[in-house]
Amino acid sequence: MISICIIGAGNVATHLYKAFTQSNQLQVKQWYNRDLSKISTYKNEVAITNTLDDLVEADVYLMAISDDAIKQVSSNLPFENRLVVHTSGSAGIHDLDKKLRRGVFYPLQTFSKGVDMDFKQVPICIETIDKQDIDILKTITEAIGSKWYRINTEQRQTLHLSAVFVNNFTNQLYRIAHEISDAKSIDFDILKPLIMETAKKVQTVSPYMAQTGPAVRHDKKTIKRHLKQLENSKHKDIYELLTASIKNTHGR
Amino acid sequence: MISICIIGAGNVATHLYKAFTQSNQLQVKQWYNRDLSKISTYKNEVAITNTLDDLVEADVYLMAISDDAIKQVSSNLPFENRLVVHTSGSAGIHDLDKKLRRGVFYPLQTFSKGVDMDFKQVPICIETIDKQDIDILKTITEAIGSKWYRINTEQRQTLHLSAVFVNNFTNQLYRIAHEISDAKSIDFDILKPLIMETAKKVQTVSPYMAQTGPAVRHDKKTIKRHLKQLENSKHKDIYELLTASIKNTHGR
Repeated sequence: MISICIIGAGNVATHLYKAFTQSNQLQVKQWYNRDLSKISTYKNEVAITNTLDDLVEADVYLMAISDDAIKQVSSNLPFENRLVVHTSGSAGIHDLDKKLRRGVFYPLQTFSKGVDMDFKQVPICIETIDKQDIDILKTITEAIGSKWYRINTEQRQTLHLSAVFVNNFTNQLYRIAHEISDAKSIDFDILKPLIMETAKKVQTVSPYMAQTGPAVRHDKKTIKRHLKQLENSKHKDIYELLTASIKNTHGR
Repeated sequence: MISICIIGAGNVATHLYKAFTQSNQLQVKQWYNRDLSKISTYKNEVAITNTLDDLVEADVYLMAISDDAIKQVSSNLPFENRLVVHTSGSAGIHDLDKKLRRGVFYPLQTFSKGVDMDFKQVPICIETIDKQDIDILKTITEAIGSKWYRINTEQRQTLHLSAVFVNNFTNQLYRIAHEISDAKSIDFDILKPLIMETAKKVQTVSPYMAQTGPAVRHDKKTIKRHLKQLENSKHKDIYELLTASIKNTHGR
């Protein structure tokens, strides 16, 4: 049984708390948050505190807090030489105070408030300073059904950047399609199966091989007509830049 | 029982042929293609021909051919007043010769060669010149398990454009993420669950509501660091343009 104290009460902390408590290999010993009201709903299932000095002994302290707070909170921890991990995609492992055994436990996924996450669909990027600390992080990921990947800080920061492309930017393309189709009174539902299929395709085929459409076909006529159809000049810019990017990737 | 002749042998024609033959409400009477060798594998299950003049009588003629060929092939059909539909997202309904009863049967989906498509996941956009022809197209879509949407030519062309955003451009963002992560020896598999979840989220939540990340949070520090991380100036341009687009959408 691995005992864990959770520090923080945001989206990631809450999803991990729920996943941890569902595993019989893990025990959440305590939950810390500066503002107790955010975790008070859980006070009958777990010990809660808003005082770092009251933190009990545990195998792992998991800090799911904002990047900017990692340095200070870790240096304020009232102990040394215990394993403390943060969950950030962009903060370095060395942002944690060096009095501690340090590690990273970064779930690469988008979490929705109020919607339970199946952790089988959450890859966890793990990193530790001390080699012997890696196994406990592997055990935790396996206990919640996740796959682990050993990823160093530079790689993790690259993943964080890549995630902006496949998540935030992709979502913005969905948004633009929503705007364009709304303007012609078209139900956005019609596009949803295509959105799913596009994501599904690259689960088994590389994005390079999966590419279709006017840009890769070098279909000038369609590209010209699409640009004419676009009424918003910002949408036009995005169309042109991504069309050029596709052409560049596919050597035209 | 609705009888259908298929004209063309590309991806869409082949997927529709398979779906039609699986329904007991539909009968594919004949399959035409200029180049017989492309459909000769099917000659034991369906009558095939490479001669338009040999086309037999059927309730519907479905032309799944390139946009440029629609005008000419439809004018070369050796009959009048029969229902002929094309499957193009961008060609107008009037591209079909006016001697015919004209319609459109546009499946809004990306088809992979060799991978069977579940037509439940394929919305069909239908349009006819004559009101009384619409019901037969509805019946065909329902027979293959698809949902139909009545969509006029302008709307269909807008959907075709929107599809470029949610399919081709999205896929190019996946490709860029693949390039960026490959350069740091990161397994692209780590990003696949996030890709799926991003697509899944907008099935129930609007893209506007689903947005997260540094641009919508106005997190200048992270944006600056990401731009510094990007080594390829074209990737930088895309990062900047889509970040500005998100900020613009969310009123920053």
